Amino acid sequence: MSDIVTAAMLVIGDEILSGRTKDRNIGHLAEMMTAVGIDLKEVRVIGDDEAEIVAAVKALSARYTYVFTTGGIGPTHDDITADAIAAAFGVPIGYHSATYALLESTYAARGIEFNEARKRMARLPEGAEPIANPISVAPGFVIGNVHVMAGVPAILQAMLDNVIPTLKTGAKLLSATVHCPHPEGTIGTALAEVQQRFPGTIIGSYPKYADGRFWTELVIRARDPDLLEAARAAVAAMVEAAGKDR
Amino acid sequence: MSDIVTAAMLVIGDEILSGRTKDRNIGHLAEMMTAVGIDLKEVRVIGDDEAEIVAAVKALSARYTYVFTTGGIGPTHDDITADAIAAAFGVPIGYHSATYALLESTYAARGIEFNEARKRMARLPEGAEPIANPISVAPGFVIGNVHVMAGVPAILQAMLDNVIPTLKTGAKLLSATVHCPHPEGTIGTALAEVQQRFPGTIIGSYPKYADGRFWTELVIRARDPDLLEAARAAVAAMVEAAGKDR
Repeated sequence: MSDIVTAAMLVIGDEILSGRTKDRNIGHLAEMMTAVGIDLKEVRVIGDDEAEIVAAVKALSARYTYVFTTGGIGPTHDDITADAIAAAFGVPIGYHSATYALLESTYAARGIEFNEARKRMARLPEGAEPIANPISVAPGFVIGNVHVMAGVPAILQAMLDNVIPTLKTGAKLLSATVHCPHPEGTIGTALAEVQQRFPGTIIGSYPKYADGRFWTELVIRARDPDLLEAARAAVAAMVEAAGKDR
Repeated sequence: MSDIVTAAMLVIGDEILSGRTKDRNIGHLAEMMTAVGIDLKEVRVIGDDEAEIVAAVKALSARYTYVFTTGGIGPTHDDITADAIAAAFGVPIGYHSATYALLESTYAARGIEFNEARKRMARLPEGAEPIANPISVAPGFVIGNVHVMAGVPAILQAMLDNVIPTLKTGAKLLSATVHCPHPEGTIGTALAEVQQRFPGTIIGSYPKYADGRFWTELVIRARDPDLLEAARAAVAAMVEAAGKDR
């Protein structure tokens, strides 16, 4: 039986908190974690502020198996994530020689100046290992249980694809969905009874509303497929009975 | 001169952490806060777990002017937000008489049974005041500096529209955007110099990537419109000069 593996995500960027940029990474990382059997337990979004990043990284890395950060690893003055991660781990930061050489040769091949701003992206905390970036070359990195990745969705997704195979994964939390044509209030009491009968499952009720109509999606989660199916059948029977009552 | 008013958002729901539901409320609340001059400083997403909700509400409500929660206030067994908020404030929870009467009469008028599940939605922590819900009637509530609202986006938006006029708002953080056709690495050093020349502003650099091309959006933020315009002009001049260098 596999251990339960947990994760937290730390989204770093003033532009998310101002509403100017809409995050598209939380949903993607959440789906990927679920797909490989890692329980994403918490997400935090904070600004480009070193003290905030240090505090959040320390809190989350102590508590969960893995931490994944997005944002703040580019070449500009507001890209302070690498420095903040170094501070959180209490290690110095400096040029990572293989990354420096990779960026130098890549920019040379493209005829682009390897200036001070771009050299910033070769700086990694001591002891960090780069996470390859097949799109724009400048890598993310992993140090301890913290994976530091880009905020641009296409680059985050590519980096995460490189990270996933390196992770310890847990027993996958399976799920089954039962469509319920009734609003939550109609089935709430009966649903709570089903949940009590199946303590090894997590039964979620998600109210849906559009065009003046309410319905509900009921999602059953369990690590054991037989238990999942038994609970799913019980939920489906409950929904059918609720329809006959009306 | 207005005080700076801060806020945190707490998104409550297993379905967001599993990736099954994509959050659409963070971006909306962030935009609304920016529009009225409140600085959204932090967002947390956590699961339907009482201890987690209590800990997060205590931490955030102590630190920021306002806390806004979404999710977990419906009629089903997994809707535990109201109980958790009561626990966080150390107060009992029970039927709120005006809300009970409102729900009772509303369901009666619609010919819908006011059953135990629906009655759950009339339970508020002692001392809480309801937040009107023009869509599905069952209210959110405010207690202390914590505003508890629904997770369904249409209902959250309607509740937030009722909350906004009750909030103390700060000096609005204005913003101006300069489009930069160059990747971040080209302008990073020069941009940092502009930021140093305008310490009363926050200059953000947001790398953009699509179809194999990189460009950058530069966003200048300040509370003083004259300072904003001076910094915007300096950033625009820097971008133009970067184009001539190439």
